[in-house]
Amino acid sequence: MKLSMAAELGIRGILTLAEEHGQGPVPLEEICRRRDLPKEYVAKIFTSLTRAGLVDAVRGKGGGHFLAKPPEEITLLEVIEAIEGPLATNLCQHTPPRCQEVDCPVRPVWSEIQEQVRAILGSKHLSDFLPKAP
Amino acid sequence: MKLSMAAELGIRGILTLAEEHGQGPVPLEEICRRRDLPKEYVAKIFTSLTRAGLVDAVRGKGGGHFLAKPPEEITLLEVIEAIEGPLATNLCQHTPPRCQEVDCPVRPVWSEIQEQVRAILGSKHLSDFLPKAP
Repeated sequence: MKLSMAAELGIRGILTLAEEHGQGPVPLEEICRRRDLPKEYVAKIFTSLTRAGLVDAVRGKGGGHFLAKPPEEITLLEVIEAIEGPLATNLCQHTPPRCQEVDCPVRPVWSEIQEQVRAILGSKHLSDFLPKAP
Repeated sequence: MKLSMAAELGIRGILTLAEEHGQGPVPLEEICRRRDLPKEYVAKIFTSLTRAGLVDAVRGKGGGHFLAKPPEEITLLEVIEAIEGPLATNLCQHTPPRCQEVDCPVRPVWSEIQEQVRAILGSKHLSDFLPKAP
């Protein structure tokens, strides 16, 4: 039961944008340098975040990425689903399901876990992880 | 956020043993036939389950696998951890941690999710998924 590596790195990357929200675009090099992230891989992840409308980008000199909305309005669930697609802890939790077993007795457990995980991730906003103003 | 394919298949396989508990060993062919599982892959998974003391095996003609203890005494968490190793939703939840970020603000979220998932999986026993006697 694991979060994908892409989602782990994406969350670390977008948190840097949250820290710099309102300060203009942050170059990808800077994002990766601060949290020791692999640049080529993170560039792909940021494409997904941009496509999902969580991040915006300015090209060229002085360009970079920035949050498309305030950190108070972006949940961890949105970030993860932008990268991994809809949360699905198990084959049966995909839409459509990827397991064909009919009347599977364990399925309610996976639904319960998925709902719990969704509830936790959906309740946490990027702003919850920023250093508190003194 | 996904359960591994090996754990998905392992749970489906060990449930067949739970259904047949007390009836003698079940050949691997029969386990795979009943739930449409890939035999070579499931054989490896059952090696992990045997090593963890959840399943026992008898070799040769009339041989097969059987539960090493009653289905009331085996949790989903034990089955998953026998296959995947200790549950770790994130890099930071491994022992030792596989992410070196110090004072990561998101870590408490991963701990919370991991505890919830462990609590749910640890409360479900194989016996919970057997057809009820009429």
